[in-house]
Amino acid sequence: MEIPLPPTRILCCDWGTTNVRAFLVALDGEVIGRRRFPFGVSKLAPGEAAARFQDPIRFEMDAQQHPAILCGMIGSNLGWTVVPYRTCPIDLKSLAAALFEVVPGPCGVWIVPGIQGPGIAGAPDVMRGEETQILGWVTEQSGRERGRHLVCHPGTHAKWALVEDGSIVRFVTAMTGELFEMLRNHSILRTVDASDDPESFDEGVDAAGDGGALSARLFTARARMVTGDRPKSDAAYLSGLLIGAEISSVPQLLETSPDQPVTIIGDAELGGWYSRALSRLGRSNAIHDGESAAVAGLMRMAEIGGVT
Amino acid sequence: MEIPLPPTRILCCDWGTTNVRAFLVALDGEVIGRRRFPFGVSKLAPGEAAARFQDPIRFEMDAQQHPAILCGMIGSNLGWTVVPYRTCPIDLKSLAAALFEVVPGPCGVWIVPGIQGPGIAGAPDVMRGEETQILGWVTEQSGRERGRHLVCHPGTHAKWALVEDGSIVRFVTAMTGELFEMLRNHSILRTVDASDDPESFDEGVDAAGDGGALSARLFTARARMVTGDRPKSDAAYLSGLLIGAEISSVPQLLETSPDQPVTIIGDAELGGWYSRALSRLGRSNAIHDGESAAVAGLMRMAEIGGVT
Repeated sequence: MEIPLPPTRILCCDWGTTNVRAFLVALDGEVIGRRRFPFGVSKLAPGEAAARFQDPIRFEMDAQQHPAILCGMIGSNLGWTVVPYRTCPIDLKSLAAALFEVVPGPCGVWIVPGIQGPGIAGAPDVMRGEETQILGWVTEQSGRERGRHLVCHPGTHAKWALVEDGSIVRFVTAMTGELFEMLRNHSILRTVDASDDPESFDEGVDAAGDGGALSARLFTARARMVTGDRPKSDAAYLSGLLIGAEISSVPQLLETSPDQPVTIIGDAELGGWYSRALSRLGRSNAIHDGESAAVAGLMRMAEIGGVT
Repeated sequence: MEIPLPPTRILCCDWGTTNVRAFLVALDGEVIGRRRFPFGVSKLAPGEAAARFQDPIRFEMDAQQHPAILCGMIGSNLGWTVVPYRTCPIDLKSLAAALFEVVPGPCGVWIVPGIQGPGIAGAPDVMRGEETQILGWVTEQSGRERGRHLVCHPGTHAKWALVEDGSIVRFVTAMTGELFEMLRNHSILRTVDASDDPESFDEGVDAAGDGGALSARLFTARARMVTGDRPKSDAAYLSGLLIGAEISSVPQLLETSPDQPVTIIGDAELGGWYSRALSRLGRSNAIHDGESAAVAGLMRMAEIGGVT
C-alpha cells in the first residue's frame, strides 16, 4: 500500500470572467511557473470547466500530481460549480474554513467561496476573486492584519473594500470600467480620439468635480469636440472623468474619511491611472500587485484549509 | 406683374436627429395640419435635406405656397446647412433676428440657429431645437417673460436651462437617455427585465441618493438580480436611478436652489416619469407640451424675423 506523500507544490488559479491566471507554487511561496489561459468562465460551455482544468491547465502547468486551489468566477453558475457566498465581515481564516472541495483526494481541487456584503441602497453586493487578493494582501506583510484599510481593486467592475483588523467588513462595486468600454463603443462619445495622454486624463479628473451629475459631466467630452474650443477630446479625458468621479464619491459610501489612504490592488497599468488620479486629488495611495496578492491569499488558505 | 400676397400659413418644422415634426400653422396660431416624418438628420445622405424638404415634407403638408421655418439639428453639419450657434444669454427676439435664410423669396425657408452656453468644467455646451421650445414656452403665456425659471427638457440628451427675464442664460446637457439605452443594450444590466412598473421606478429614484457615485449605484441593479433578495431588477428601476441621479445633481450645476420649481417641457410620457421623480424628491414641477411650445416659438420668430 502506497502512502501519499505530502504535496510539495500547489497549483493556484485566479479564474475570472475573461482569463485564468495559473501559478505553480512551492510550499515556501516561490512561484515556479505562471501562465495565463484565455478561457475565463464567460468562454466556457456548460460543464466544460473540469475538462479544461485537467487539459490544458493542469497538464501545461505540469501539476497533475499536485493539489489545486481556485478562486474567482469559477465558483459561480458560469463556472465549475456554484459555491455559495460567505457573508461579511470575513477574514482569511474563516474563508479558508469554507473552501469547497470539488475534486477529492491527494490531488484534489478546492474552490474559494465568493463573499457577500451589505452593499448600498438596500441591495447586497457580491465579489468572487477580489476577496482572495485583498485578504492575500493582508497576509503579505505583518502589521496589515491590524487597523483600518481602504482597498481599491480597479477593473471592469471596480471594488472598494473596507478592511478592519484583517476582515473585509463591507464593500461596494463601481462599474466604471464597463461604463468606459460602453461609452467608447456605443455612445455619441465613440468618436473621441484614442489616447493615453496624461494631461487629458488630468483634465478629466478635474472635470469630475465632486463625482455628482455624471451624465452631465460626461457630455463635456462631446462639447469639447463640437465647439473646438479645447485642444481635443479623447479617451484619456473620458477615463480621467470616470475614474475621478469614482474616487470622489464611491469611498464615501463606505463612510471613510477623505484622509484615509487608499491601497490599490491590481495590475500596474490601470492601477497607475488610479494612483495618478488619487494623487491629483490629494489622497495618499500605494499600488500593490494583484497577482502576488492572489498567490499569497491562495497559499495561505491552502495551508489553513488543509489542502497541503 | 404679380404682387405676392402676404402668406396666410407658415410651415413650422422641428427637425431633429431622429424625426421631423411638421406643422402647418395659420397666422393666428391654429395648427391646421401636423405630421411626423421618420428622416431625422441622422438618416439623411449628405446634401439630401433640401430635396426631402420639398418632397415629401412640403408636398404632403400641402405647403408649397407658404414660407417655412425650421429649428433643430437641420442647422448642423448633418443637416441642410451649418447655421452658426448664437451665444447665451439670448432671448427670442435676438434669436429671431439671427434667422438664416436658406431659400430666399416669398416661399422662402428660414433656419433657427442653435445656441451655445458656458456649460460646465470649462467646456461650452450646445443645443439645437430645444432653445425654440424653451423660448416658445416663454411666449405661450404672459408673465413667463419675467423672473427666473428652471427648465428641464428630457430626452436622449436632456437639457437643463436657466431662463431669466425671457433669456436663456445658461444650460447643461445630461446624457441620461443615452446612458439608459446603452446600459439596456450593451452592459451587464442588459438582462434586467423590461418594465414600466412605477414602484420599481420609485425604488430606483430612492437608490439614486444625492446623485453621486453613479457607477456604484448602477451596480445595485445587478446585485438585485444576483442575490435574489429583492423582488426584481428591471428597466424601471434603472430608469428611476438614472433620472433620480440627474434630478438630484444636475440642477446644482446651474446654481439653482433646491426649492426652485422645475418646468418640464417635452412629451407627456417621458415628462411624466421626470415629474414623478421630481415630486418624489419633493420638488414642485409642471409638464408642458414640447410640440405646442415649438410651434409657439417658431411662429413668434417668424413674425419678428420677417418670415410672414
